[in-house]
Amino acid sequence: MARQLRLGAFMRPVSIHTAAWRYPGAYPDANFNFAHLKRFIQTLERGRFDAFFMADHLAVLNMPIQALKRSATVTSFDPLTLLPALAAVTDHIGLVATASTTYEQPYHIARKFASLDHISGGRAGWNLVTTANPDVALNFGLDEHMEHGERYKRAREFYDVVTGLWDSWADDAFIRDVDNGIYFDPDKLHVLNHKGPELAVRGPLNIGRPIQGWPVIVQAGASEAGRQIAAETAEVVFTGGGTLADGQRFYADVKGRMAALGRSRDAMKILPGAFVVVGDTVEEARAKRDLLDSLVHYDSAIASLSIALGIDASRFDPEGPLPEIPETNASKSGRERAIELARRDNLNVRQLAQRLGGFAGLAFVGTPKTITDQMEEWLLTEGSDGFNVMFPYLPEGLDDFVDKVVPELQRRGLFRREYEGRTLRENLGLARPENRFFPK
Amino acid sequence: MARQLRLGAFMRPVSIHTAAWRYPGAYPDANFNFAHLKRFIQTLERGRFDAFFMADHLAVLNMPIQALKRSATVTSFDPLTLLPALAAVTDHIGLVATASTTYEQPYHIARKFASLDHISGGRAGWNLVTTANPDVALNFGLDEHMEHGERYKRAREFYDVVTGLWDSWADDAFIRDVDNGIYFDPDKLHVLNHKGPELAVRGPLNIGRPIQGWPVIVQAGASEAGRQIAAETAEVVFTGGGTLADGQRFYADVKGRMAALGRSRDAMKILPGAFVVVGDTVEEARAKRDLLDSLVHYDSAIASLSIALGIDASRFDPEGPLPEIPETNASKSGRERAIELARRDNLNVRQLAQRLGGFAGLAFVGTPKTITDQMEEWLLTEGSDGFNVMFPYLPEGLDDFVDKVVPELQRRGLFRREYEGRTLRENLGLARPENRFFPK
Repeated sequence: MARQLRLGAFMRPVSIHTAAWRYPGAYPDANFNFAHLKRFIQTLERGRFDAFFMADHLAVLNMPIQALKRSATVTSFDPLTLLPALAAVTDHIGLVATASTTYEQPYHIARKFASLDHISGGRAGWNLVTTANPDVALNFGLDEHMEHGERYKRAREFYDVVTGLWDSWADDAFIRDVDNGIYFDPDKLHVLNHKGPELAVRGPLNIGRPIQGWPVIVQAGASEAGRQIAAETAEVVFTGGGTLADGQRFYADVKGRMAALGRSRDAMKILPGAFVVVGDTVEEARAKRDLLDSLVHYDSAIASLSIALGIDASRFDPEGPLPEIPETNASKSGRERAIELARRDNLNVRQLAQRLGGFAGLAFVGTPKTITDQMEEWLLTEGSDGFNVMFPYLPEGLDDFVDKVVPELQRRGLFRREYEGRTLRENLGLARPENRFFPK
Repeated sequence: MARQLRLGAFMRPVSIHTAAWRYPGAYPDANFNFAHLKRFIQTLERGRFDAFFMADHLAVLNMPIQALKRSATVTSFDPLTLLPALAAVTDHIGLVATASTTYEQPYHIARKFASLDHISGGRAGWNLVTTANPDVALNFGLDEHMEHGERYKRAREFYDVVTGLWDSWADDAFIRDVDNGIYFDPDKLHVLNHKGPELAVRGPLNIGRPIQGWPVIVQAGASEAGRQIAAETAEVVFTGGGTLADGQRFYADVKGRMAALGRSRDAMKILPGAFVVVGDTVEEARAKRDLLDSLVHYDSAIASLSIALGIDASRFDPEGPLPEIPETNASKSGRERAIELARRDNLNVRQLAQRLGGFAGLAFVGTPKTITDQMEEWLLTEGSDGFNVMFPYLPEGLDDFVDKVVPELQRRGLFRREYEGRTLRENLGLARPENRFFPK
């Protein structure tokens, strides 16, 4: 069989695009309405998606109120509360929740993901994050955010503790011998007794080993420390996208690190986030995107452009071309990317600002055929193992992907027609981890 | 309308009785099988129960392995992971999860219960506990358990923070004005900025105000501090049962404390836990209980009797009567209760041990008519406002209650035939709390 794409759906927020809730026909409350979310996931399952993926923030994002009041993401569900509810109304699709190693306790995390894995019949995934937003500290009783190196040190040990707790019970510990009144075999229970530099956790976990052994481990860190912990532990990596060349460099780097550690390259799937707008013609798809971008309020848009350029862009003529921009102390890459984007897509100041204020990352805007061509190119040239798809607006953008792009991917032999396995791990082609305390 | 019973179902463990999983026809994995739990809650909803109630433990209980290996409760689901899944397969019944103020963070708790309340359409309740089990500390990086007074001090402040976070947004904050691109009215957002002796939490919460304003506040503390915090804050109180006279004393005490604080006595429902065994005759019900008790393994049973008496009971003749027991330094009430139980029900040593090792609290064992008589007496003499029903074994014990006792309660006008409202709060007859920052 040819190399197969893996597809996640990036569903928190349900659309990454700031103006999604204003698009004609969109549900303005899509992010926050269980009935809508149920419809979305059932459609994704019909489209044979590998997983429903929820990012997370442990705070309302720190933005000027003029921008914040326009954001549909200030209200949304806790991932580990929403996903069990969605598990109950689906049968096959994976359920990946973000949870922070900086602001959580490993016993809670091990227990919740184990519970989700059992309730869903083996469909849970944990997106392990260290939480970059310093405002979160203020919601958790701390004056200062933990610094980057410290966060990653704790994350690595947290992972060891959580996976150790998942291994508290052998897979066959629960014998439930009614006649003799023996519920479990005491020889198949392990007390972790972890005492490390950051964490002390006795165990055992008060729930049996997850159906998948361990829920699938997902990560998104792009820093040096993030790539290293991913190479050591991750089974799915979600990246920020960028150009195909960027994707290929990232792919080669992280898979190379795996090989150096003795892990098989196939034991991890790398999925860049891809914003996909589908039209019957390329022109129609572009027009949809232009309409969507035009709905980004200029207050938000110009703030994004100013941040990217490192200067106050509100004094530029919105309808004119981007003027010459002097170099500043701000991010050089942000400035260069904005200038390149304006040039490539021939955008005036307003359009450029609205693109940056909407979504400016990797995008496939075209017909089912052109989108499939691009996805295939990424797959076959080791730019990625698939994508974490971002929908431009809901429900239409999601329905278009499932009804139009998925059949084309299937026709080309790039994507499954039926789920291969019973669990997320089986569908992704990942091995079930052995229990470290009860090896076979 | 006559005074109405409120009925919760105590569902973690699904049966409080140690031998429930061994009863003929019982599901040995009832505590840990989502398909079974879905069936149970749908049956309870058909029986118009107010709520599905989940106790919790943050550790495997500390018991000698000889008793522990016989316990069906070592593996069970995290309440805040199971209840969202059950919300998705029900429409009316309330969903009450236990969560600890000692081992959780208020931002997480506020967010998870708000999410559950929205996902379930206003059916969430929070059983606020301070966690008495000192072993839990070892699972959360602490060498020593927080002492009782300190736990209750933190609990009271935790409650203020969580309810304050629920009030972050006015009920009508989210205007979703598509034309003008305004998602919420900035004047209807409040930043809590709590800085207290135990907790510092900025806010706002990143989810809209719960449908019920606040999820229903449930408590179970029986100590002096527990009764006082309940009188100040609780809307449902779950008690350990005991005799009718015990119930009346507790009821008068806590409702009296409420009155002294200026709270209406109707603003709280007191629900003792009641173990109910249904038969077509009283003899049949007693025989069912005897069979169930006989399935408590003697190892576990005699350990329970020894603890109750404060002496090693394993040297007694199991088939003989309870010998004279000298007073010891152990719990006087436990010893007296055991002696009284043996006398009242004419139990030999084995039967007494098995009763104590199974479930020895408040029990209604009889026909639908005698059970209804007893429940009515409690209700009409201010022993309680209803019960948190404990089933002897599953599914039969639960089905018997719903199919046989509920119709009798309904015939007698003691219990609803249809749900009165849309939310748990409405069904319990509790007022929706005003938003403290955005009064009407």
